[in-house]
Amino acid sequence: MKFNRILLFSMSALAANLCLAQDIKDDFQPSVLNQPGQQYPQVNSQGYARFKISAPKADSVRVSLGLGGKGGTVLTKGDDGFFTGTTGGPMDEGFHYYHITIDGGTFNDPGTLNFYGSTRWESGIEIPAHDQDFYALKDVPHGDVVQVLFPSRSTNTSRRAFVYTPPDYNKNQNKRYPVLYLQHGWGEDETAWSNQGHANLIMDNLIADGKIKPFIIVMTYGITNQLRFGHMKEFKIDTFQTVLTEELIPYVDAHFRTLANRQNRAMAGLSMGGMETHTITLNKPEVFSRYALLSGGIYTPEELKDKSKPDLIFISCGSRENPDRVRQAADALKQAGYNAVSFVSENTAHEFLTWRRSLYQLAPLLFQNK
Amino acid sequence: MKFNRILLFSMSALAANLCLAQDIKDDFQPSVLNQPGQQYPQVNSQGYARFKISAPKADSVRVSLGLGGKGGTVLTKGDDGFFTGTTGGPMDEGFHYYHITIDGGTFNDPGTLNFYGSTRWESGIEIPAHDQDFYALKDVPHGDVVQVLFPSRSTNTSRRAFVYTPPDYNKNQNKRYPVLYLQHGWGEDETAWSNQGHANLIMDNLIADGKIKPFIIVMTYGITNQLRFGHMKEFKIDTFQTVLTEELIPYVDAHFRTLANRQNRAMAGLSMGGMETHTITLNKPEVFSRYALLSGGIYTPEELKDKSKPDLIFISCGSRENPDRVRQAADALKQAGYNAVSFVSENTAHEFLTWRRSLYQLAPLLFQNK
Repeated sequence: MKFNRILLFSMSALAANLCLAQDIKDDFQPSVLNQPGQQYPQVNSQGYARFKISAPKADSVRVSLGLGGKGGTVLTKGDDGFFTGTTGGPMDEGFHYYHITIDGGTFNDPGTLNFYGSTRWESGIEIPAHDQDFYALKDVPHGDVVQVLFPSRSTNTSRRAFVYTPPDYNKNQNKRYPVLYLQHGWGEDETAWSNQGHANLIMDNLIADGKIKPFIIVMTYGITNQLRFGHMKEFKIDTFQTVLTEELIPYVDAHFRTLANRQNRAMAGLSMGGMETHTITLNKPEVFSRYALLSGGIYTPEELKDKSKPDLIFISCGSRENPDRVRQAADALKQAGYNAVSFVSENTAHEFLTWRRSLYQLAPLLFQNK
Repeated sequence: MKFNRILLFSMSALAANLCLAQDIKDDFQPSVLNQPGQQYPQVNSQGYARFKISAPKADSVRVSLGLGGKGGTVLTKGDDGFFTGTTGGPMDEGFHYYHITIDGGTFNDPGTLNFYGSTRWESGIEIPAHDQDFYALKDVPHGDVVQVLFPSRSTNTSRRAFVYTPPDYNKNQNKRYPVLYLQHGWGEDETAWSNQGHANLIMDNLIADGKIKPFIIVMTYGITNQLRFGHMKEFKIDTFQTVLTEELIPYVDAHFRTLANRQNRAMAGLSMGGMETHTITLNKPEVFSRYALLSGGIYTPEELKDKSKPDLIFISCGSRENPDRVRQAADALKQAGYNAVSFVSENTAHEFLTWRRSLYQLAPLLFQNK
């Protein structure tokens, strides 16, 4: 009987695949993250991704993206030496990391731009989201993204940070701005929020629409690469906390026109950056007044009591993560008298569309009671 | 007889290789351009490069770098599934682009960072130069590299530029600076001068040493990808000239504290960026007062007569390019009454160490008679 049930399951899965296969629309377009002039990978209006890789003498080419997590999408070799293939179903809207496996080795798709994730520069693909307008590059005034190299005595080097300054920053040389310190996730770095997250474009659009008062965003490397994935509890926050609170913040306050006080300073992070935000804000409640965790855990009233009270706590995740935990945490905080807000990104998981949407929801709540 | 001569030649080549092989020092270190934590590629003190690629089921792996231009370095498969190999001789000091060929397909080395060249993001490796100190990251005040998105009506989009501002830019809010517009070569883009060229570090070090008065550098994309390599004469300058002179320069002058006049504005470019510099400065002598061509052609007195006289003409190349042409061109210009300077980078070819050194020589000459 067990054999029959397995067989039945397999047959219905096959039927579903056949059904899906018939439904794939033939409106594939190059992904917007392709390198200049590259036609592949492509994406169709349903969210299927199609890949095409030249490797004339290779035996096997596989793409890490696909459904079911069973080794991704296997590409098929054609007579022209190209391997091609399409994901077994539509992908979540938004940004996805991936890589290709050629005869057992891990490489990037030469068609796409690379993005730093999983402690390496990986291929990226973008499935157009129905709400992509909020992070689109539009004909509006654009802020700058400033690469700074700040001295770090504690790590004995110059460290890099990116600083988003709003479009009016260079107009009025007397105006000062609040600051959000915004952290990436495990295996990513200080490039993630601009490259994968489009944080600068989200801000430009919110400002152009008059939905927020302008503020500065600072993004630096959270020193997370040493950690093996899945061993979060082994992480020691001290090194990064020192860099952030004793070196970077003073540098930013000295080099940019900031409002250099707790009231005008926020910290947020995605995934492991949320864990860092959680720990550092609880260790240093005198430094930040607004906290945000994006797919990066929760706060409890017990953790916060007897500390300087935050003005805002924002907790978010994708609907395919653990939305009930996020909502319940915000409810518990509200009942305990905190200004807590939860946000759940619909039909997304632990991925960048969740975090783009979270920043879009968070930004108007930050610093608005000034 | 012909056969014998070929055989003799082959034998002596083999002898030379054996001789070289015996001399390879075993002091290989990871290239400084490797991705975080990656051990390969490696470089030794003589300039040999060693590669190691995991591709357990591949039949052939080749690296485009090597001597003799005969398909680069062929890697040999070991029992552990890794392909390894060492270049057949020492490489030029400085930066080199490369890629790997796996079973006939073109990919990047997963060990290294990528750099935009040849109209694609390629692997990069750095052979430490004996004079690398001038572009090293040191414990000195660092300027910023600002990503700006400027509106371009003529191309109907927002375009990207990177703007280097010197370390004291944020200190004195009343000080204004001269500006150098600095162009990349064919197949590169606006990231080249910072990533491959270390233009910002060269400036930081020159300023820290008191060798130059600070100035701003602006780097944008020269719209060169459309051109097929080797068809330079088909290139039309109009599109880029309009973007540069009618859109970018006004934007930079409005958003940064520049000295917004011809006297304080220079243009320079490497390779095809030199060709663009040559054409645009001759078309628009009222916009720029100082011109520099780095491995990018020459000026003649005939071209310059009856135009606004430039305050400086700088012409450079590597000693393995055509140094006599560069020196003779500067001599002819000097005889015709122009302030012309030539520079030849020793033991380098058409590559980034030539251009790093050229910028280092050019910067102190640019705006020093202010």
